[in-house]
Amino acid sequence: MKVKFGNKKKELRAVWYDKGVIKVIDQRALPKELVIRELKNYREVATAIRTMVVRGAPSIGALAAYCIAQAKDPEKASTILKKTRPTAYDLFFGMDYVLRAIKKGDNGVKAAKRYADEIIDECKKIGINGEKLIRDGAQILTHCNAGALATVDVGTALSPIKFAHYNNKNIFVFVSETRPLLQGARLTSWELLQEDIPHAIITDSASGHFMKKKEIDMVIVGADRITLNCDVVNKIGTYEKAVLAKENMVDFYVAAPNSTFDFKTKRGGDVLIEERSEEEVVSIEGKRIAPKGAHSLNPAFDVTPSKFITGFITKDGVFTPEEMKEHWRR
Amino acid sequence: MKVKFGNKKKELRAVWYDKGVIKVIDQRALPKELVIRELKNYREVATAIRTMVVRGAPSIGALAAYCIAQAKDPEKASTILKKTRPTAYDLFFGMDYVLRAIKKGDNGVKAAKRYADEIIDECKKIGINGEKLIRDGAQILTHCNAGALATVDVGTALSPIKFAHYNNKNIFVFVSETRPLLQGARLTSWELLQEDIPHAIITDSASGHFMKKKEIDMVIVGADRITLNCDVVNKIGTYEKAVLAKENMVDFYVAAPNSTFDFKTKRGGDVLIEERSEEEVVSIEGKRIAPKGAHSLNPAFDVTPSKFITGFITKDGVFTPEEMKEHWRR
Repeated sequence: MKVKFGNKKKELRAVWYDKGVIKVIDQRALPKELVIRELKNYREVATAIRTMVVRGAPSIGALAAYCIAQAKDPEKASTILKKTRPTAYDLFFGMDYVLRAIKKGDNGVKAAKRYADEIIDECKKIGINGEKLIRDGAQILTHCNAGALATVDVGTALSPIKFAHYNNKNIFVFVSETRPLLQGARLTSWELLQEDIPHAIITDSASGHFMKKKEIDMVIVGADRITLNCDVVNKIGTYEKAVLAKENMVDFYVAAPNSTFDFKTKRGGDVLIEERSEEEVVSIEGKRIAPKGAHSLNPAFDVTPSKFITGFITKDGVFTPEEMKEHWRR
Repeated sequence: MKVKFGNKKKELRAVWYDKGVIKVIDQRALPKELVIRELKNYREVATAIRTMVVRGAPSIGALAAYCIAQAKDPEKASTILKKTRPTAYDLFFGMDYVLRAIKKGDNGVKAAKRYADEIIDECKKIGINGEKLIRDGAQILTHCNAGALATVDVGTALSPIKFAHYNNKNIFVFVSETRPLLQGARLTSWELLQEDIPHAIITDSASGHFMKKKEIDMVIVGADRITLNCDVVNKIGTYEKAVLAKENMVDFYVAAPNSTFDFKTKRGGDVLIEERSEEEVVSIEGKRIAPKGAHSLNPAFDVTPSKFITGFITKDGVFTPEEMKEHWRR
């Protein structure tokens, strides 16, 4: 991704490998500061994933792949990492990719690099395929951050938006802020500013209002896991936006690399939904907003049934849920 | 309302009149501190309403009524106050009530006091009527704050919940935090803690998830204005919750005093929706969360069409939208 440094722009990835060291953009520090962190072992990687220094299913998958590649005991590292964020499927996929390569006698680091490059290549194809769905003048809603930060580079949901912008289509993006951790307001807005894409941040409660007023033409989101029946597990709030889109006859698209598809799990309801700490809800940026003694519930993801999804945007094309199932059967 | 001071409880209203001075609880300072403010003239009252020191349609109505009652030039004060928050109907209703009393030669302050007492009396009746809808063991979602703070005392949406608790029903309340100003997390949670009512704060994006999981049995919200066709104008996010409730076959109730009904306006779509400052979204508690240069859109209310409403809880009983229209025709 291009990142503005004053008048200059620099190419950066969310996760990369540089002379024996894993480097990542610290997504907790954005948008205030651009901090690059070095992660030296699987313990540091596990903490970075758990505390969301690195987040977004494909970025987590790539980070885990690099971690396994450089681990002294890859199997042990894999066991620890699997527990960090149980919902994202790419995490499991990325590690298995490298473990298989090592077993075959391949170089683990080279395999991890190939894995990361494949994600980026897929993201570009997702952008090219999804861009065709975006008409000139479109107003698009996205939720959370499914951009370059979430996917090593380029993005999934943000990729068609970026390609539409590169093709000089006049677009406007509604960015839902995505409480509790505000990935929309902090990260998606930051990425769109790097590319000068016009947008406005709205609260998570406001997208229905704008859909009803016909100010939103389409929704594009990412996915943390897509199950065999094409249910989508993604950031909490995705399900609400899908139901509201259907009610208001707004197209609802899910953009995802193939590593997000989990054929071992039949239904979204079978996926373990990560419950995160109460603190993320009752405090914002370290400042308590709720009264002393108040509690919260903090599910990180929800399940959007396939009936609410207009189409999946993948590297192989755009598919309805029925077509997607057929495509995978082949 | 009862407010805990250490081991003691004290009776307080959100707005009252004491020896020639209007006094209010500063709702911006809660839950951190309980601050009582004195408002000396219509300029101070207008600022208090605009900055949401006092918020909630019925509390605003009562405050405006007291303000008109003590104003040297009631007509001028009324013109200024009408511009503070254009969506809440009680604001207009409260001022007209006192202006009519003054024209008839009544004492303005006595009229305003009567107006405030009538709201509280209505709220209690709403509680008694609504309580019957709540089964033992019910899990109830509410949005924003439609409690004692919003309605001088007792509350509208919170009144049936409080009465169910007084009647020893075992209930649990999901409190949606209500960005941008967090009236759910800050105020509703604070009120429920004063009464020891079990509850949890959730993000605005999470209610659909809990409805789908059958963890929410019913929704009760307040209203800022109800139009002739029984559309409900209320805090941004209400529409989303109503659509999600219908999708998940969860009952959706609106609790409101009669002063909220606006028969001069045909449809919700005809109501002017207040747009508040960008700052409320891009910053939280004075701390910027969005990147420099990012913009936001901040509608304060949305419109819930009557087809999504199971019933209105009023002092005269519980009515479906069709029954409500019939009731008013009489």
